[in-house]
Order: sequence, then structure tokens, then C-alpha cells
Amino acid sequence: MSKTRITILGAAGYTALELIKILFRHPNAEIVAVTSREDKRPISQVHPSLSGLLDLSLEHLSPKEIAARSNCVFSCLPHTASAKIVPELLACGTKVIDLSADYRLDSPEKFQLWYSEPHPDPDRLGNVVYGLPELFRQQIVDANLVANPGCYPTSAILPLSPLVKSNIIEPDNIIIDSKSGVSGRGRAAKLDSLYCECNESISAYSVGTHRHSPEIEQIISISSGKQTTVIFTPHLTPMNRGILTTTYSIPKINNLTKSNVIDVLKIFYCKEPFIKIVDHLPATKDVAGTNYVHITAEVVGNRVITISVIDNLIKGASGAAVQNFNVIFDYPEKTALV
Amino acid sequence: MSKTRITILGAAGYTALELIKILFRHPNAEIVAVTSREDKRPISQVHPSLSGLLDLSLEHLSPKEIAARSNCVFSCLPHTASAKIVPELLACGTKVIDLSADYRLDSPEKFQLWYSEPHPDPDRLGNVVYGLPELFRQQIVDANLVANPGCYPTSAILPLSPLVKSNIIEPDNIIIDSKSGVSGRGRAAKLDSLYCECNESISAYSVGTHRHSPEIEQIISISSGKQTTVIFTPHLTPMNRGILTTTYSIPKINNLTKSNVIDVLKIFYCKEPFIKIVDHLPATKDVAGTNYVHITAEVVGNRVITISVIDNLIKGASGAAVQNFNVIFDYPEKTALV
Amino acid sequence: MSKTRITILGAAGYTALELIKILFRHPNAEIVAVTSREDKRPISQVHPSLSGLLDLSLEHLSPKEIAARSNCVFSCLPHTASAKIVPELLACGTKVIDLSADYRLDSPEKFQLWYSEPHPDPDRLGNVVYGLPELFRQQIVDANLVANPGCYPTSAILPLSPLVKSNIIEPDNIIIDSKSGVSGRGRAAKLDSLYCECNESISAYSVGTHRHSPEIEQIISISSGKQTTVIFTPHLTPMNRGILTTTYSIPKINNLTKSNVIDVLKIFYCKEPFIKIVDHLPATKDVAGTNYVHITAEVVGNRVITISVIDNLIKGASGAAVQNFNVIFDYPEKTALV
Amino acid sequence: MSKTRITILGAAGYTALELIKILFRHPNAEIVAVTSREDKRPISQVHPSLSGLLDLSLEHLSPKEIAARSNCVFSCLPHTASAKIVPELLACGTKVIDLSADYRLDSPEKFQLWYSEPHPDPDRLGNVVYGLPELFRQQIVDANLVANPGCYPTSAILPLSPLVKSNIIEPDNIIIDSKSGVSGRGRAAKLDSLYCECNESISAYSVGTHRHSPEIEQIISISSGKQTTVIFTPHLTPMNRGILTTTYSIPKINNLTKSNVIDVLKIFYCKEPFIKIVDHLPATKDVAGTNYVHITAEVVGNRVITISVIDNLIKGASGAAVQNFNVIFDYPEKTALV
Repeated sequence: MSKTRITILGAAGYTALELIKILFRHPNAEIVAVTSREDKRPISQVHPSLSGLLDLSLEHLSPKEIAARSNCVFSCLPHTASAKIVPELLACGTKVIDLSADYRLDSPEKFQLWYSEPHPDPDRLGNVVYGLPELFRQQIVDANLVANPGCYPTSAILPLSPLVKSNIIEPDNIIIDSKSGVSGRGRAAKLDSLYCECNESISAYSVGTHRHSPEIEQIISISSGKQTTVIFTPHLTPMNRGILTTTYSIPKINNLTKSNVIDVLKIFYCKEPFIKIVDHLPATKDVAGTNYVHITAEVVGNRVITISVIDNLIKGASGAAVQNFNVIFDYPEKTALV
Repeated sequence: MSKTRITILGAAGYTALELIKILFRHPNAEIVAVTSREDKRPISQVHPSLSGLLDLSLEHLSPKEIAARSNCVFSCLPHTASAKIVPELLACGTKVIDLSADYRLDSPEKFQLWYSEPHPDPDRLGNVVYGLPELFRQQIVDANLVANPGCYPTSAILPLSPLVKSNIIEPDNIIIDSKSGVSGRGRAAKLDSLYCECNESISAYSVGTHRHSPEIEQIISISSGKQTTVIFTPHLTPMNRGILTTTYSIPKINNLTKSNVIDVLKIFYCKEPFIKIVDHLPATKDVAGTNYVHITAEVVGNRVITISVIDNLIKGASGAAVQNFNVIFDYPEKTALV
Repeated sequence: MSKTRITILGAAGYTALELIKILFRHPNAEIVAVTSREDKRPISQVHPSLSGLLDLSLEHLSPKEIAARSNCVFSCLPHTASAKIVPELLACGTKVIDLSADYRLDSPEKFQLWYSEPHPDPDRLGNVVYGLPELFRQQIVDANLVANPGCYPTSAILPLSPLVKSNIIEPDNIIIDSKSGVSGRGRAAKLDSLYCECNESISAYSVGTHRHSPEIEQIISISSGKQTTVIFTPHLTPMNRGILTTTYSIPKINNLTKSNVIDVLKIFYCKEPFIKIVDHLPATKDVAGTNYVHITAEVVGNRVITISVIDNLIKGASGAAVQNFNVIFDYPEKTALV
Repeated sequence: MSKTRITILGAAGYTALELIKILFRHPNAEIVAVTSREDKRPISQVHPSLSGLLDLSLEHLSPKEIAARSNCVFSCLPHTASAKIVPELLACGTKVIDLSADYRLDSPEKFQLWYSEPHPDPDRLGNVVYGLPELFRQQIVDANLVANPGCYPTSAILPLSPLVKSNIIEPDNIIIDSKSGVSGRGRAAKLDSLYCECNESISAYSVGTHRHSPEIEQIISISSGKQTTVIFTPHLTPMNRGILTTTYSIPKINNLTKSNVIDVLKIFYCKEPFIKIVDHLPATKDVAGTNYVHITAEVVGNRVITISVIDNLIKGASGAAVQNFNVIFDYPEKTALV
């Protein structure tokens, strides 16, 4: 069976490194090029863990060159950089899985509001599938372009969507308190990401202003069937990887119990290969290095609490991207992911 | 000036170690004895950081022996162990600062409910001052026994009390999402506290069942003037020390702004030596190793969010204990704490 | 193709967990039983990361029961426990890969000296292959029992053996300064393994007395052809996994250069799938979660310095065990390991 | 008693922050200015832990302005930046404690060789006291300029000097294997210092080329009375602070025992307030946050091993600087340091 030829854009970061490692395990994937705008070093110098494993150097390639070599592109570029190159790739017939935020929001106005820049490819917004197979698998099957979800949204949408869909919680004023490892910050050399700034400390950031808020609201609104808002507070936690999201919402029905909520989740996800509804309180280490999501729920006082854990670099980024790749190219969905 | 002679009960744990280190800096404190029920080793073997600094061995002492040697006792014993020895110490005229949970709740029934054991000294409950000088300084001045607050309650009560007192937030259904370092678990050799179980992972625990919930509710109820409940979710964070507490509450007045909330806090704590109301989002490292509390507030959607940070071993335990000691013995309140 | 049926002895620890995760990826392996002497819980309660993935409970099984169910046993039992059960397993025709220290040393006297206990199966010592395929692959092919190497020995022997074999360093008085993550301590609930005892701290331990010393000396002696001794100092490093070993030895030939040493290593390991000789200074994160070994060398003053990194739980334990399994059962050696 | 007025140069880094915190506890020190070449923000914005504690902003000041305001300067500038300003400060009569490397080496040629730049103030080299009070207290008393030692040199010289002075170890080919926390890298925003690059990993760096090598050799040579060389290998350890140094040397006398070595160290340092010779294996956490040094020794095979631990930011930098300050200004040497 011939392999799908893959180019990875923006290959110097953490997300790309995870992607490469996952694709090594994929029998149908061949990485043919890795790009960077500035760096031309061998990829194994940029990521020493690839020493002796991938004999490619970073290249600065035009969309045409990329399309000539590969039939699938994973973009790990920063936002707006991705949407500047995606249209041409699509025009050449290349499929694109975009790990940036560029195609997640459904209108250019929303993008401009949250990212403070005009969108480079505004007409496409509203027509791109949100790459969460658990909710949108059918649309992904036929997609040429998939907007890979943000890490926080994945951790929040997966526990909440079934509960708003089944109408057992109020879809408004849901509080989402998330704790993420530092790799979520990316690999740029910034003071705030230094070891001694992050280690032995936890802090909240972007309170009320985080760009994943509208993304969560957009998908929860689809699930609830009405425009909904959330209060989203991310926290920077001293660990490399992992997100734990705690949500607090108000039950819509009297005497809702923990086992009611757990049952709704279990039924909703009964056929999903990567979602595990558990009765205990999960820890991020339970899913570290995997594409799995562990979710539980509690009812305390007049609040439904859900707790979910993912690996932000895998299910929150590169694992989800490969899951989408498998769906698009009709490979078994778990390929390379277990 | 003669020094106050101090015995520390239960000196093998982390809280006692911090207490000893703080008391080294106190010109009016002399540690005369350190106790343990089982261990008789030199304290510097139990805590190697004390090598060459404190020439005492752990002893198993009766209350009478303790009272004969010392005029102040800090109890770092586990709950119920403390209340078994405190009455006799008080009868001998020794002042007691109790870092256990034994005298925090105001009724034996509440204690029994949350700690699943009968209280060893039930008649005293309801008459012991809660050792948070920022709220109860006048009662502490004359106290013979002080119930040193729990670490989580300190981190939650300090931001919330002024807001419920000033009537700007609803006192009910306040959500308290706390993140604590692992030292809060104590020094017992338990699987759940192992390095490899805690490192590179975050998890929630005791959801809806943590014993600090009734303690928080009790003090918030005093501040609000009515019986209130909270939803309290603690999380175990991979760091030695520090608590960050995020609270979510509903404004009682329209158009409440961040600066309104900050102003209420600044005015309330304007004379407090250890409370700093800040405009930025604080991190636990900002107060690590200190008795300070940094608090800020935000208003997002229809929610007031407060974020507060403490060092759980200092302001959350031993620093607060020395602060109470200073108040009781009429030493300047900041002695040994800056 | 029928699968090899596997039982894992002592499945509650970290090594067994890694082993299980690796075997999930092995197309020819089926885990049929997991044992524990005391615990009877479902394995997914003991290791929550296995939730929904392995539907087995821990069992207490006799050697006969084990042999009846499985044709290969991985023993993750503590030392002496393993050698009490292995003889009967072998007698039943089951192949055994022993991850304990029981069959590594070549005489019962040496075992008694270092482990302070008589060996339960003394006659076999001296006739068991040391499971380092890079040095002893041919003997492993035909083995019924393999002594899987210790983690520190693997990290020290791999860089040193080629250098003593090729006679370019003095085989005596080699200094081996190793730094290991905390998982090397195992999963027992001990004070010294607590998060707050290990985090934010590094320390040496077992200086001059570590049980891996005779193991290293035994294999280096085989490589050098004469009885040799080493000075081995292990250090406990605040990380979950990884070993970095720095060795210092005296060149036997004048003007030896870094590239001479690197060349010897590259030639020696040119066909090895898991050994990467690198020119840069490797970090343990470069091999974390993998079966790879990265090795480099420097010449400084009159000393040859080698630096090698492994994942102590993978190449230092469970990955090596699966590599041995592949060799014994004639599966491609990299199966499940890349 | 009037206070010594202090300016801190280069106050935005970790060393300066520690210095400020120590000086807060000093009854005879007043911080009057903090400088930065680029930053003009309030110091509490640069170091949020100083919120409400130090009401100064960073300033760019000329040597004359500094000298007009202060009678003592602590320089936390990078190398060569310090020596460009120190001469003028000294000319104005200001005492200088230089935490940079500029005045540690004893010749401009050596400086040029290791720092690849000409020294800005070459004539002074060779006449500046090395600020290790345990070895050079008498010269520090009368100094106007003190070269505060490097962190690694402090950790290596303190255990080794007494042993070479007393002639019980060979002064040549001593192997020094050091492990340092990440704060030793400083606070610059570099890729290699990012949390995700350092966490969960250990690596060697600057093998054979680290600039602290000649500094160690210079002082060991003074102690031994002859030119000596060392093999120095630093390792980056995943923790904020602390250095553990393991040294390996050859005994000069037969049958040297551990207790011989320990005795030499105990006698040598019997009057030193900050040096503790211990019988157990120390951990960096034992001295974290303090100016203490814990040292032990072992004899293994034909090697003397010493193990020493310091806090790199305190005894390895700012604590030592304040210790020097106390010696120069005739304050009790332990002031602000216990």
C-alpha cells in the first residue's frame, strides 16, 4: 500500500516534534519535508531526540513546492501564518490539517476581535470543519481542510457537550477552570516560559481574555442549540504536559446524581476509542503521552462538576491531528495512536 | 528580655520544620523541647537541614513535663491527638497554638460529621478563637488557646470575607477552586504522596468531601451574617509548596468592576502587614517562603473572580502560628516573619 | 500468527506498567495474567492509566498455574522473590525474562555479599545469560532464562565496554558518576521517595555500596579480559525517569582524541538499532519514553569522559526486557520498541 | 547606628532578587538604588515577590551618581560590564562587592583566554581578594573591592582546599562532577533555559570548557602550593536552585579512612559559622534558601570522594556577597544570614 506523503509546516516546535514521533508509528505515513521560515538545520539538531531517526533538514518551501512533494500537510505554524499559505495548498489539491487557530472560529469578525488581526483567508471561515471526531466525524471524512481544536477547548468541550446536548445542565455561565502544563506556551524563548519562572509555582493567566474562550463557546453553542457563554480561567501548572479541566455548571433537573451524569457521558461516548468515562478522579499522568481522554463527574451541592484530563500535546494537538488524518484518509482511526 | 520557652509537639513533619526555622529568627523565642510519640532521634537526623543548628532530640513527654519546661506550646499533632493533650496543657497555664484541625470547628457534632470521630474535648468547641489575625486579632490577644487556620481556608477566606462583609457578592454557592503543593499532604509515607505519583501531574481530590469545606463555610458565614455554603474543589499540584485559590461568585450589585472589588479589598486590608492587594495576576512563587498573601480580583461576565496565593507551610500554617504567637505575647506582629 | 501468551509477575510497580504499555504495541504478545502477592484489585485500579485498556485483575498464582496459562513470563518481582519461583517455571518449559537482580551476578557468594541473603537458586548462577543484546545477543537467542540488566549497569556498560575491549582506556579505577530519576526507587511507600523529599533536591546515595557496582564490574571484566573495579556513585535526581551516566577513565594511548573515541563507539555499535553515538552532549529527555541510548565522549586533560543517557524504565528495564523477548522468540528486534 | 547605603547594579536578575531579600533582614543595610541598563520599571514589577516591599524603580545611573548616593555597591552585572564601571566607583571611594566573574582570575591573559574578550580593567587583576571568607577572611577585612566567588568554585573549593592543604590527597587530576539547578543559568530568555527544555531532564554542558575551571584551579593551586589542574564537568539539574558537587581524588597516604578525611575537614572549619561537616550524605534541599554548606566525605577503593551542597543563589552568590559585606563593614558575620 502506498504511503501518504506528509509535509509538516513549522517543525521546530513541541507540537511538531510530537507529531513526528506519532507518525513514525504510522504504517501509512511518510514524512517527506519539514519546514521552517528561518532555520535550515537538520531536524535532529533542532530536536535531539530525533538523532539517527529522521534524515531531513528544515527547509523554507513555497506552497507549490510543498504540494508537489506531499499529499497531506500538517500546519504547526502560528496563527495568521497558517491561513496565508493554506489557500494555495488547497488549490493544489493538498489536504491540510491545520493545528493553528486560524480556521477554528466561524467568522472573520470573531477572529479579528480575539486575535487583533484581520484574517488572511476570511471567506473560508464558517465552512471549515472543527476537527473533533467525537462530535464532527462525518464532516471530517470528506474534508480537505480540518481546523484542529485547541487544547483547552478539547478538554472542556468533551465533558460539557453531552451534558448540554442532553439538556441536564444549564448551558450558560458554565465555569471552566483549567490547569495546563507549560508546553502549551510553545517553544519560543520568552521570560515567562523560563524554567525558574514556571517551576515550583502555579498562576492564572489571561483571565477573561483567553482566545480559547470563543472557541469553547462556539462549540458549546452548537451542542446546546443556543448562544452560550462560559467563564474560562486557564492556569499555568509546573509540568511539561497535561491539561486538567474542572467545570462547574448548574443542573437543569432536580436531584441529578453523579451516576446520572456519568451515565449520560458513558452512553454518549460508548463507541469512542479514545474517551474513557471513569468513576475515580483522574490525574493528567493517567493520559500523559497518549491520545486518551479520561472524564469523570461529581454532583456537589447545586453544581455539576466535571473533571477531564488530556495530554495537551497529543489529544490536545498532534494526536488529534493524526486522528483526523486517519479519518480523512480512511485509515483505522486508532492507527499510530495506541 | 527573657525569652518565651517553646515546646513543639509532633516535630517530625514539614510544618514543624518550618516553624523551627521561623523561630530561629525570633529574638524572643527559645525552643526548649520537640516531641514525637515514636521517634527519639536527634532532630537534626529527622530534619538534616537542622544539622549543627538545634541540639535537641525528639522526646515523648507528658503534658505536665511539657508545661514544666515551657510557657508556650505549638501543636503540630494530627487531629484528635492534639485535643487529647491540650486540655491538660491549658490547665497548667501553658498557652497553646494548635496547628491541627481540632479546635477550628464550632461544634462537636460538626467535628464528628467531618472527621468521623468523636471530639476528645467537646465542651471547648465554640469558644476557641480562629487564629486569623486579619479577622479576629482582638480575640487572639487574650487567648490561651488559638485554633490556627487550615491552609486552604486561609487562602479562600482572606479574599472572600471582605466581599461578603461589604455585601458586593452573593454569599451562597461560591465556587472555590484551589491548587495546592504536595507538602499539604504531610510527611507520612503514603503511595499517593510518592514523587512519581505526584510529579508531572495534576489531579483533583476530595471533591465535595474535603474537611476544609466546613471551616471555610463557618468563617464566611460569620462574615456574611448568615449560614452560607461553598463548593470547594482542591487540586494536588506538582510543587512542594504554595496554594493558589481561584474563587467564582455572583455580584450583588450591577456593573461591579474590577477596580470596585480591588478597592474594597485594599481598604479592608490597608493596615495589614501581610496582605498585599495587587493589580496583576499573582503566582505562588511570589509568596513562597514568606508569610505574605497576594490577592487580586477580576470581573468576567457575571462573575467576580478572586485569585489569592499563599505559602501553605508559612501563612497557611507555621507563619500564621508565629503571627498568632506574636499577637498573644505582645511582640511586634512581624517579628521573625519578614 | 499465534501470539505468545505472557504473564507478568509483580505487576503493581512502575516497571510492570511500562512493560504492559510496550506490550500493547506488540502484535505477537498477549498479556494473559498479572500477579501480585497481596493485591487482588483490577489492574486498572492499581494503574489508572490502564482504564479501559486491560481487563485483568491481579492474581496470586502458583508457578504451575502460570505455566499452564503462558509460555513466557516477565518477572518484576523483588530480588530473591524471583529466584524462588523461576526454577519451577523453567521446569514447566516456560521462558523467563527476569527483571529482578537475581540472576545477574555469576556466583552465589557474590550475591550473598551484596544482597545479604543466601541465593534461593544458587546452582544456576554463572550459567545465565546477561540480557544486554548489544553484547550477548547470540547467547540470548537460545536462552530459556535471561537476566535483564540493571538500569545503572546498562547506562555504564554500553559506553565503557567498547573502550576497554578496544584497549584504549585503562580498565581499572574507572569513575562512574550516575544521575537517576526517582522511578528507579520503585513504587514502595517510603519516606525517602516522597515528593517533598525528592523534589527540588539532588543527593548522592549508596556511595561505594550500591548493588549495581558488582554487576558493572562483572561485565566490564568480561570486556577487558581481566578483573576490574569501578568507583560507582549514584545520585537521585528530581525527575520521574532517565539516567545520565558520566564516566571518567584514563586513556591507554597517547594523544587520544574525542573523535578517536567516538569512532570506536560508532564502529562497535554500527548495526545496533537502539544505540546512537552522537557528537553533542545528550540529555535524558532525548531518550525519555524510548528504548534508545545516546552516547557521546570527550577527552579532557588526561581523562576520557563518556556521557550516556537512557530511560531507566525502558532501556533500563522494560524496553530491554521486550528487546530480549524479541530476540528469544525471533521477532524483529525493534518490534513494539519504536 | 547609621545604615550603609547600598546600590545594586543589574537588579533584574535572580541573584539581585536574592540579595534584596537578604538585605531586607539586615539591620545595617539600606537599599537606596537599583539599576538596569534598559529597564525603568518599578522593581516590584520586575520581581512581583517584592510587591509592597521595596518602593524603588530601576534606574540607569552613572558611576558618579551611584557613588553620590551609596557607600557600598553590589554588582550583579554580566562579566566585562562590571569591570567597566568598577574602577570609577572605587575612585569615588565606594566599596564594591562584585558578583560577576570580572575580578576572580589573577591575570588579564587568563581572563582573555576563558572569556574571549580583553579585560576592561586589566591592571587590577592579581590584586583583588577572592571573596571566600573561609579562606581569605583577613584580606577581605581591608578590601575596597571583593571578587565574589562563582557558585561551582565555592562548592568545589570548600571541600577540596583543606584536603590539599593538609596534603592527604593528590592535588592533580581531581575530578569534579557538579550538578546545578537552573537558576545558575540566569534570567535571560534563552531556548535552553525554557521550562520544557530543562524539566524532567538532566544533561552535562560545557564539558572541559566551563569558565569556572580556571577559577577552581587558581584557588586549589594556592591551597596546594603548586600549579594544579582539575577535570570539571557541570550538569544541569531540573530544580530551581542548589549545587551538589562530587569530587574524586587520589589519597596521598595509605589506608586513609573516611573518618580521617572528615576529621581534617571538621578541624579546618571548626570556627566557621556556615560550614557544617556531616557524617551523612547531604542533599541540596538541606541547605536550600540558606548560606550554609554541608560537606561529607567517603573513601571508596583508591579514591577520596567528597560531596558538598550549597544554595547556588545564596552561598554561591548573594549570601556570600552579604557575608563579605559583613566582614568589610565589621558587622557580625552572620547578620541577615541566619
